[in-house]
Amino acid sequence: MALTAISTVHHLPLSSDSTKISLRPRSNHQTTTDAPANHRRHGFAINIPNTISNLLHIGTARPSIPEELFTNSGDRKTPTISPKENISSLRDAIHGRADWSNLLDPLHPWLRREIVKYGEFAQATYDAFDFNPFSEFCGSSLYSRRRLFKKLGLSKNGYGVTKYIHAMSNVELPRWLERSLHADTWSKDSNWMGYVAVSDDEESRRIGCRDIVVAWRGTVSPAEWLEDLQGKLEPLRDDDDDDDDDDDAKVEHGFLSIYTSKSEATRYNKSSASEQVMEEIKRLVAYYRERGEEVSLTVTGHSLGGALALLNAHEAATSISDLPVNVISFGAPRVGNDAFGDQLLEKGVKVLRVVVKQDMVPKLPGVLLNEGLKRFEAVTGEIEWVYTHVGLELCLDVKQSPYLKHGFDLSGFHSLETYLHLVDGYLSKQDGYRRSARRDIALVNKFGGMLRNELRIPAGWYQMANKGMVRNAYGRWVQPEREPEDIPSPYRDCRPVVLPESL
Amino acid sequence: MALTAISTVHHLPLSSDSTKISLRPRSNHQTTTDAPANHRRHGFAINIPNTISNLLHIGTARPSIPEELFTNSGDRKTPTISPKENISSLRDAIHGRADWSNLLDPLHPWLRREIVKYGEFAQATYDAFDFNPFSEFCGSSLYSRRRLFKKLGLSKNGYGVTKYIHAMSNVELPRWLERSLHADTWSKDSNWMGYVAVSDDEESRRIGCRDIVVAWRGTVSPAEWLEDLQGKLEPLRDDDDDDDDDDDAKVEHGFLSIYTSKSEATRYNKSSASEQVMEEIKRLVAYYRERGEEVSLTVTGHSLGGALALLNAHEAATSISDLPVNVISFGAPRVGNDAFGDQLLEKGVKVLRVVVKQDMVPKLPGVLLNEGLKRFEAVTGEIEWVYTHVGLELCLDVKQSPYLKHGFDLSGFHSLETYLHLVDGYLSKQDGYRRSARRDIALVNKFGGMLRNELRIPAGWYQMANKGMVRNAYGRWVQPEREPEDIPSPYRDCRPVVLPESL
Repeated sequence: MALTAISTVHHLPLSSDSTKISLRPRSNHQTTTDAPANHRRHGFAINIPNTISNLLHIGTARPSIPEELFTNSGDRKTPTISPKENISSLRDAIHGRADWSNLLDPLHPWLRREIVKYGEFAQATYDAFDFNPFSEFCGSSLYSRRRLFKKLGLSKNGYGVTKYIHAMSNVELPRWLERSLHADTWSKDSNWMGYVAVSDDEESRRIGCRDIVVAWRGTVSPAEWLEDLQGKLEPLRDDDDDDDDDDDAKVEHGFLSIYTSKSEATRYNKSSASEQVMEEIKRLVAYYRERGEEVSLTVTGHSLGGALALLNAHEAATSISDLPVNVISFGAPRVGNDAFGDQLLEKGVKVLRVVVKQDMVPKLPGVLLNEGLKRFEAVTGEIEWVYTHVGLELCLDVKQSPYLKHGFDLSGFHSLETYLHLVDGYLSKQDGYRRSARRDIALVNKFGGMLRNELRIPAGWYQMANKGMVRNAYGRWVQPEREPEDIPSPYRDCRPVVLPESL
Repeated sequence: MALTAISTVHHLPLSSDSTKISLRPRSNHQTTTDAPANHRRHGFAINIPNTISNLLHIGTARPSIPEELFTNSGDRKTPTISPKENISSLRDAIHGRADWSNLLDPLHPWLRREIVKYGEFAQATYDAFDFNPFSEFCGSSLYSRRRLFKKLGLSKNGYGVTKYIHAMSNVELPRWLERSLHADTWSKDSNWMGYVAVSDDEESRRIGCRDIVVAWRGTVSPAEWLEDLQGKLEPLRDDDDDDDDDDDAKVEHGFLSIYTSKSEATRYNKSSASEQVMEEIKRLVAYYRERGEEVSLTVTGHSLGGALALLNAHEAATSISDLPVNVISFGAPRVGNDAFGDQLLEKGVKVLRVVVKQDMVPKLPGVLLNEGLKRFEAVTGEIEWVYTHVGLELCLDVKQSPYLKHGFDLSGFHSLETYLHLVDGYLSKQDGYRRSARRDIALVNKFGGMLRNELRIPAGWYQMANKGMVRNAYGRWVQPEREPEDIPSPYRDCRPVVLPESL
């Protein structure tokens, strides 16, 4: 019988200062922020930031921003999209079974672009999530699967969403499940938890295969659920491994529960998230293989979503043994024990864990009981109950970016937009933030306040006008009706899904 | 020499719970919120709320709202504007020198409508204020005076704005002056502090006189400035009273400083708020009197703005002795000593102080040293250094409204929108909230969270999409340029002001 480990989880205070604005520059930025003022005061003839920006051909400079921030990304007139190149020659390495390790240090620009692409797919699960407890559709996607990418400006990536995934939970992971305050609501038991998408013909040609993506939603703030994460390991049923009970893979109870829970009494989870997603993956793989195409699966997710991505990848690799399965996770916690990691390795699942050094979440669960204990195997003896990370790690550092505040900000360190900003600027372990990074820096402050004040981007600016309220014909402010197409429906969502129009 | 009193000001903790949402109804509402659920559970044939709303012809009822909330105002399809009646027959009582006292209990519906009108003029100074520290126009009005009422939906009132007032301060009333984080900004020293408006021909006919309004901006949250209010009385210079030094009126130092400060080094306060507003009042009075019209002045303001209104009224009545001067203030603190109050009375200034019983601000300054001490005159001897309220009081009670939470909420009690909601429903000291109140209840939650959750209005919903950020042609999120017409300009604002087009 296997032991069950309870790992220690520290209660981490949320930084309440992260969104506050100070009229005074932080003392460690004193020199740079004071410099432009000095120029004016002493009547210097040369405006240094302006001169640099003129040399770089980046348009009008604003004098109060420190010189170091005048890269392409700091300016308002550079396109935000990195060049799209045909990367099919590296298909095996990027989207196949071949290892990523040669592409990580320095980070290959093609892989960097792909990581950002998948990160934006994961980000979409936040940006389109209805968090409003007064909305009768709280916990659903604001937009139907057909309009999701268009509404979020992600159509440029050349994918179409084929199915939405919903999840429920029997366990108390506090507040991961958002609920409406309405008595009548689209669903009391389920939340929109992610989606399946597939590359269109053009994108498939560019990357060298038909790419199925599964993106899993996480939780925006680590405090929401990590504080009470029990870290209770539970056996992962894997029919292939019945013969070897000692190697039983075990995974965190709460994650598994979200992935596998279902109930006949619900509208959206008569089948579990696992069943929904696997049915769709199998359908798409069969469809494209019948047409003679190479198919790959990339599972992505941030935070809790990264944990679900690993469970999903494990299941997909088990069910469809010859399918290349890649996982790109962002700020994901540990999920299972050593045997679970070994199984993923045996099944050929490639895992890239993108991690921000200052983010606490990837240190959980198992702050004490983790893969670091392997050194003491002789002492600890049985180590199957210890949490372990799986795969390669791309380690980012908040200090690499000149645009970010360096103060303690638990939410900011964990935010997926912080991750994507750091990936976009990452060159290698030694190099600093790349000058040619083009992703819009303002996105970092969508939900948080990590950007330095000199950039003049308000903290948490991603918000609807009047929290979505509209003034009706009678002059009253009311919750708007959703457009019929965006109203969730278990019937529409459960019918055999039509492939994206572009295919 | 007069004594200077330092009154005691309590440090009041801000309720941080006011905007939190609970999935469970408050225990004191248990019965009402549970009722509809019970109806469904037991399969009652009659939906009581629906029946009531059908009787009242108020459209579709939503079953989860307690029955008591189904008045006209709770529904989505009743116009929000109360009937406009010709009130000129009560001109002397409402807009002239005659006393309001006969109209207050029960509150005359014509006066109620006028109070709400002036309250909305005061509210406009918040709704149009640029609070964004990343905006280069932080501290100004978002809209030019010509567009203010149109942008805020106040054109219905039949007034035109003729001048904006700006104020600076030499004293430390913490945070009343909002500043931009920009190095280059429209003004480092001044804030938009209010405006002068005048009734158009139609509205003047309706109310029986040409009505000049001055609306003064206050501060949104009491904690912003009240915590450090020193309550230091300072002599108010009044040239008419030079002969009677013992009767010297004294007013709170901080309020007076905002009203009278000026500096040649500034762009917007080469003249003080006092000078700006008095120049405009005199100009308008002369203009309309020359045309043989009856002219009245109504000064309004909330919180700090109510204090400024009193100073302004005192000065206007002193300068133009035959002008009827009315003050309608909302949640205003005490301003001066007994002699100041006596002078206002002598000058014939009518003051109506609208006060919410639960609001702390009207109790300041002078929580201990106030007009209540008059009883002990024999003991205290000299009472000129004691703060006193002036005029009639219309006392509202949060508990009168069935729509409001009753928990402690310092900001909510003080919010001007709470005041306007309670005025709209007020009948008399004895009666409950009036069923025929029509003002949109959702407005209460513009900046706060006083509305009961059953009404499904998010707390603090008054917000710009993406905090005003816009996505530019290059795909980058940036602070938008203001429309040229709305960019503040000391030259435009200081030129002789054209009268509203409608006049």
